[in-house]
Amino acid sequence: MSEREAARAVGGPDPDGRARATSGPDAGGTAAADWWATAVSRIEPDVIELRGQPVQDLIGRIGFAEMIWLMLRGERPDPRRAALLEAALVSSVDHGPHAPSIAVARMAATCGVGLNNAVATGVNLLGDVHGGAGEQCVRLLEEVVAGSRGPGGDTGGDPGSGGDAGGDPGGDAAAVVARWRARDRYLPGFGHRFHSRDPRRDPLLGLVAEAAEDGVVAGAYLRAALEIERLIAPVPMNIDGATAVVYAELGFPAPLARGLFVLSRSVGILAHAWEESGQGRRNKGPIPPSILPTWI
Amino acid sequence: MSEREAARAVGGPDPDGRARATSGPDAGGTAAADWWATAVSRIEPDVIELRGQPVQDLIGRIGFAEMIWLMLRGERPDPRRAALLEAALVSSVDHGPHAPSIAVARMAATCGVGLNNAVATGVNLLGDVHGGAGEQCVRLLEEVVAGSRGPGGDTGGDPGSGGDAGGDPGGDAAAVVARWRARDRYLPGFGHRFHSRDPRRDPLLGLVAEAAEDGVVAGAYLRAALEIERLIAPVPMNIDGATAVVYAELGFPAPLARGLFVLSRSVGILAHAWEESGQGRRNKGPIPPSILPTWI
Amino acid sequence: MSEREAARAVGGPDPDGRARATSGPDAGGTAAADWWATAVSRIEPDVIELRGQPVQDLIGRIGFAEMIWLMLRGERPDPRRAALLEAALVSSVDHGPHAPSIAVARMAATCGVGLNNAVATGVNLLGDVHGGAGEQCVRLLEEVVAGSRGPGGDTGGDPGSGGDAGGDPGGDAAAVVARWRARDRYLPGFGHRFHSRDPRRDPLLGLVAEAAEDGVVAGAYLRAALEIERLIAPVPMNIDGATAVVYAELGFPAPLARGLFVLSRSVGILAHAWEESGQGRRNKGPIPPSILPTWI
Amino acid sequence: MSEREAARAVGGPDPDGRARATSGPDAGGTAAADWWATAVSRIEPDVIELRGQPVQDLIGRIGFAEMIWLMLRGERPDPRRAALLEAALVSSVDHGPHAPSIAVARMAATCGVGLNNAVATGVNLLGDVHGGAGEQCVRLLEEVVAGSRGPGGDTGGDPGSGGDAGGDPGGDAAAVVARWRARDRYLPGFGHRFHSRDPRRDPLLGLVAEAAEDGVVAGAYLRAALEIERLIAPVPMNIDGATAVVYAELGFPAPLARGLFVLSRSVGILAHAWEESGQGRRNKGPIPPSILPTWI
Repeated sequence: MSEREAARAVGGPDPDGRARATSGPDAGGTAAADWWATAVSRIEPDVIELRGQPVQDLIGRIGFAEMIWLMLRGERPDPRRAALLEAALVSSVDHGPHAPSIAVARMAATCGVGLNNAVATGVNLLGDVHGGAGEQCVRLLEEVVAGSRGPGGDTGGDPGSGGDAGGDPGGDAAAVVARWRARDRYLPGFGHRFHSRDPRRDPLLGLVAEAAEDGVVAGAYLRAALEIERLIAPVPMNIDGATAVVYAELGFPAPLARGLFVLSRSVGILAHAWEESGQGRRNKGPIPPSILPTWI
Repeated sequence: MSEREAARAVGGPDPDGRARATSGPDAGGTAAADWWATAVSRIEPDVIELRGQPVQDLIGRIGFAEMIWLMLRGERPDPRRAALLEAALVSSVDHGPHAPSIAVARMAATCGVGLNNAVATGVNLLGDVHGGAGEQCVRLLEEVVAGSRGPGGDTGGDPGSGGDAGGDPGGDAAAVVARWRARDRYLPGFGHRFHSRDPRRDPLLGLVAEAAEDGVVAGAYLRAALEIERLIAPVPMNIDGATAVVYAELGFPAPLARGLFVLSRSVGILAHAWEESGQGRRNKGPIPPSILPTWI
Repeated sequence: MSEREAARAVGGPDPDGRARATSGPDAGGTAAADWWATAVSRIEPDVIELRGQPVQDLIGRIGFAEMIWLMLRGERPDPRRAALLEAALVSSVDHGPHAPSIAVARMAATCGVGLNNAVATGVNLLGDVHGGAGEQCVRLLEEVVAGSRGPGGDTGGDPGSGGDAGGDPGGDAAAVVARWRARDRYLPGFGHRFHSRDPRRDPLLGLVAEAAEDGVVAGAYLRAALEIERLIAPVPMNIDGATAVVYAELGFPAPLARGLFVLSRSVGILAHAWEESGQGRRNKGPIPPSILPTWI
Repeated sequence: MSEREAARAVGGPDPDGRARATSGPDAGGTAAADWWATAVSRIEPDVIELRGQPVQDLIGRIGFAEMIWLMLRGERPDPRRAALLEAALVSSVDHGPHAPSIAVARMAATCGVGLNNAVATGVNLLGDVHGGAGEQCVRLLEEVVAGSRGPGGDTGGDPGSGGDAGGDPGGDAAAVVARWRARDRYLPGFGHRFHSRDPRRDPLLGLVAEAAEDGVVAGAYLRAALEIERLIAPVPMNIDGATAVVYAELGFPAPLARGLFVLSRSVGILAHAWEESGQGRRNKGPIPPSILPTWI
């Protein structure tokens, strides 16, 4: 046991640690250390522990998607859940230069900044409208699922019996959808300005359905999403909706739906910025120099 | 065949497409379309192709690390190479709040911006000094490897015979190192201000050595890095050096060493920003408010 | 008259321009031009007009603060109003390294990115919590002022007679404050975690009071803010509140209170990033390397 | 005298302060305070000093351009020099949506992020190619001016006698230009892809010439720039060149030419982002959705 660990064994860092921080020798140092307290990683000389696991035990033994899960949630997923996460991460890497996140990263790559700055520029645009629909859709699904359970209800664990509660979100779903639509004409996760039917919807929902059948996930969020789709037919679920189903079934809180989308889309952003940096343009604008913006 | 595809069938988009752009009907529209030409993805109504592969054929059938490879290089890796990439991506996700990229993302998360903005803030800092060492180390290794071959030499393919050319980078390595050190006291990829021996070095190099033995990679960059380490002993390789070996062996051009580091570190940045957002601070500064910055 | 101008003389760009965009020769080019239509500036070969004024007529004849006003609002302010804007811009340039915006820019400056990237990193943090209080405070004041007028009331123009309507926001102010406090414990623009009385409050409010006395501004927002301050005494207005009063009196819509704060704070962000870049640190973390973050 | 000030009176913060930081009571607190030491501002409870001047003495008494000078250089400029700075800041606020910095900020404004994030996105693109030409041009001019002086020469102070040394940069200028052109085909500060003659050149250079005649600035950088222009005729100076002349004459170090450009261009970026946010688009891409990027 290190001295540091011994100190912790006697008095936990919080609240005692913070008490230590306001008096006694090196109070300021302790206060500064506590200011940056974290459970994500422990970095000391020659020690790197990520969520309590020495990094050397992870390298070569854990997949990248599993690592994402571990870092965000502090525990490793079983292989079936990891595969679902992996499928969702794969599905939303790119939507071409029409997506503002992609276009701005390409433009950045022609302005004499680093590849990291180009990626950051793209990621910065994944806001409430561009990257937030998944997060909002998880909340929407959570409302429907919460409403379909009785008081004290539970979605989880046993999809067989859970089916009784979660199997008919219909009445509540209609009310929830009406409430959301009264606030905003866009229902997050449904409809696409470009695709009549998003080609990513079916394979993602197929994987979730399979996992629900096998008891890997409960399936309540899938049922909720399908019910909404039925209610607002013929507008189908889009990628934000389909990934929201995956992330909700896997137990990720809503804001991480955006976080995971950020990790996924970063791949496409990087690929486009890299391609653009090889095309030799300087200070690329959004349209060719020969076309002058209309003056209004 | 769509009208668009038909048009292409008659005259390819490049160079004929660009000729079309300067005259004829809808020259401006074609010019604008060509301005955003890309080989990364093809997005048309109800069509999403990533590097020529329909997205629905990828979801559930390809891992996230393989997807990264496909998007950056236009082809899928074999499983052994994909596993090496995955190990490198796993290894550098986080180095705690002392890393500026992590700290600024945590601070951003307390300022009322989106999780995407917090991640972008962190990624934006992975510049030449913070995230660029891997890129520079690939260039360093490339110089050593190029020097160890004779004219017309080749590092690749057969690590057994390649050993003749790549096995003794010694003389050249010393000259290359001297040249780099004359320019900058920091040799990228070697030494760490925190760790006497970076715990990520051994497992990563072990995996590369194994892959070289099995002929999965040629091993020339590994030998070059080890030779440099010998020359500047006792300063060991750090994470930037070890991942540079992996990326160089896998054939990634130097700038993508930074790009891949960005994807990897984004995971830790997100995990920290997310943790911080749950701790309730507002406008978190770098040190507790009780400690006043020295006025000089 | 250029061909382009001639074309406009025959048919205005909007709505006719948009009609043109969907058919006829070069429909795509027109659509792309309209996509970027703007009234802010007109840039054509050898022509730069900002809000309709040739740039050569502005250089040397307009102050920087006036230029900011012109660009944001399309008209030039009179000198007294310009001076008020200038005072507000001066007041909020910096709040030292405890401010996350300042700290992250300093850290960025040690990571091998450009000075522009360092400034962008700081500006990126001026979100709802860090830079948004001014915007929210303008909305708060707008509610109080709107409530203090009768139906069809007006705040503006004649502060003498306006005093009848705007002079006693008391009853309404209390209701508005109660409503805001029920939503959030922080009342934007009031109180400071650091200063018992923000030294920037008095000089700014003094300038507004003087301008109101002289009929330069109406004074309704000033009265509303002072009334709120009285209601929640002894918590005084902070810099966000005092600048909100200025910006509201000058007629800036609420979101531009944040926008103007961004322009102001960018000065301090740049000054700090520049100072840090001369101090020679690399990859500066938030606390000295000797202090290890607490592991929780 | 506060306890803190008393402590400083006994032992200066540096190097003694750093010694204190490694031992004695509250060593960690002192180390953390010194880690954020700054001469830009001093913020203590109820105290805000900017470059040593209480903020309440600045508000209403100093212009915004003067404030920028004070913050960057620690002293206030005389009115003539301040006016030159102001003219340069006014000149480069905007170059329309063709400028990547402007376009990306407009796109960001449609993605559901804050106005601060939109501005940061634009500023982030002012890199070596987009915003760095001014900085590089200052260096170019410095080389020419340095070469035109004899050993121990000096550009400054007395433009009459300085004229002997700085008046004929011809021979050296040719050599410097040749050296720069050998490295890069773009000579920073000269030529424009859009304007045959940048309309901002003449008024800016006119102001500098006038100031040189009046002895406000020495004029050596102006002469150097004009000599270069003569050498590479008919390619005229552009806005980066003209502002580089101003900044160099005013004694700003080269990197601050980019820094000042950032402050100036932020105004246009904000104006465009604000206009775009009022136009109602969501997730604006670079070209209208009807135009599909060419697939290569």
